[in-house]
Amino acid sequence: MTGAHGYSARKDNYTKRLRRIEGQVRGISKMIDEDKYCIDVLTQISAVNSALQSVALGLLEEHLGHCVSHAVAEGGEEADKKLAEASAAIARLVRS
Amino acid sequence: MTGAHGYSARKDNYTKRLRRIEGQVRGISKMIDEDKYCIDVLTQISAVNSALQSVALGLLEEHLGHCVSHAVAEGGEEADKKLAEASAAIARLVRS
Amino acid sequence: MTGAHGYSARKDNYTKRLRRIEGQVRGISKMIDEDKYCIDVLTQISAVNSALQSVALGLLEEHLGHCVSHAVAEGGEEADKKLAEASAAIARLVRS
Amino acid sequence: MTGAHGYSARKDNYTKRLRRIEGQVRGISKMIDEDKYCIDVLTQISAVNSALQSVALGLLEEHLGHCVSHAVAEGGEEADKKLAEASAAIARLVRS
Repeated sequence: MTGAHGYSARKDNYTKRLRRIEGQVRGISKMIDEDKYCIDVLTQISAVNSALQSVALGLLEEHLGHCVSHAVAEGGEEADKKLAEASAAIARLVRS
Repeated sequence: MTGAHGYSARKDNYTKRLRRIEGQVRGISKMIDEDKYCIDVLTQISAVNSALQSVALGLLEEHLGHCVSHAVAEGGEEADKKLAEASAAIARLVRS
Repeated sequence: MTGAHGYSARKDNYTKRLRRIEGQVRGISKMIDEDKYCIDVLTQISAVNSALQSVALGLLEEHLGHCVSHAVAEGGEEADKKLAEASAAIARLVRS
Repeated sequence: MTGAHGYSARKDNYTKRLRRIEGQVRGISKMIDEDKYCIDVLTQISAVNSALQSVALGLLEEHLGHCVSHAVAEGGEEADKKLAEASAAIARLVRS
C-alpha cells in the first residue's frame, strides 16, 4: 500500500537521517575490521541506537497524532485495534 | 592503533552481522520512501536496535574477559581506569 | 486535582501492582543488607524495572486512548500540547 | 551465604538509596490513588527506573572489579562462568 501517513510530510527528513545512520553502521563495521578499541566501538553503537530511537519517537508521535487519534475519534473496533497496536510498538521500543 | 583485542578472533562474525544491520537500515529508509505503514517501520527499527545491542553485548563480554580483567589483575591506576571506562560504556548501553 | 482519568477504572489494579513492587524494592534492600550475591541482586532490580515499565505502558495506553485522543479530536493548541507531552513521556520511558 | 562482596564497603549507601526508591514507589501508588495526572505519574516512574538503574550500575561495577576480575585472573571454568553470568546480567539490564 502506498498512501499518506502521519510521517509523509517529513519523509525526506527521515530518509536523510536513516542514510546517515546507515553510514554510521558501515563505520562501525570498519572500526571492527581495523581492530579499533572496543570501548570506542561501543560508544558508536550507543550513538546509532540513540539516533534510531529518535527516528522511532518522531514517527510514533506523528502516528499517534494522525492514525491513532483519528481511529479513536471514530471509535469502535478499529479504535481499540489502533491503540493496542501503538501500545505494542511503544512496548517494543522501551524493551529494545 | 591496530592490534589484537578481545573481539579479534570473532571479527568476521561481527562485521557480517553489522553488514546485515546496515542492510536493514537501508530497508527502513526504503519503507519510509514507499510510505509503508508506520507501525511496520517501528517494528523494523526495534529489530535493528536489538541486533545492535546484541553486537554490543558480545563485544562487551569479550572486552571484560580480556582488557578489563587483565588490567584488574595487574592492579593500579590502569585497573581503575579500565573498570570505570567499561562501566561508563555499560551505562551508555543501558540508557541508549 | 481529583478527577477521572484514563486509568481511573483500573486504579485498584495499578495500586496493587505498585504495592507489590514496593515490597520487591524492600526485598532488594534486605538482600544487600544480608550480603547476597551481586548477580542475584541485579536480577531482582531488572525484575522491578520490568514491572514498573509494565505499569507505565498500561497507564500510557489508557492516557493515549482517552486524554490524547480526545484532545486531538477537538484539535487546536491543546491537541498539539497533549501530543507533545505524551511523546516526551514515551521518550523518557524509552531512555530510562 | 553471608560474606564480603564487591559492594560490601558501600552497603549503607545502597540500602539508603533503595529506601528512598521504596518511598518513591509508595508515592506513585498514592498519586494513582489520588487520581493525579497520568503524565506526572509516568514522570515519577521514569525517575524510579533511572534511580534503580543507577544502583544496578554501581553494584555491577563493583562486581566486575572484584568477583569477575579475580575469577578471570585465576582462569579456568570459574572465569568463564563468572564472565557469562555478568554478561547475562548486563543484557537483562539493557533490555529491562
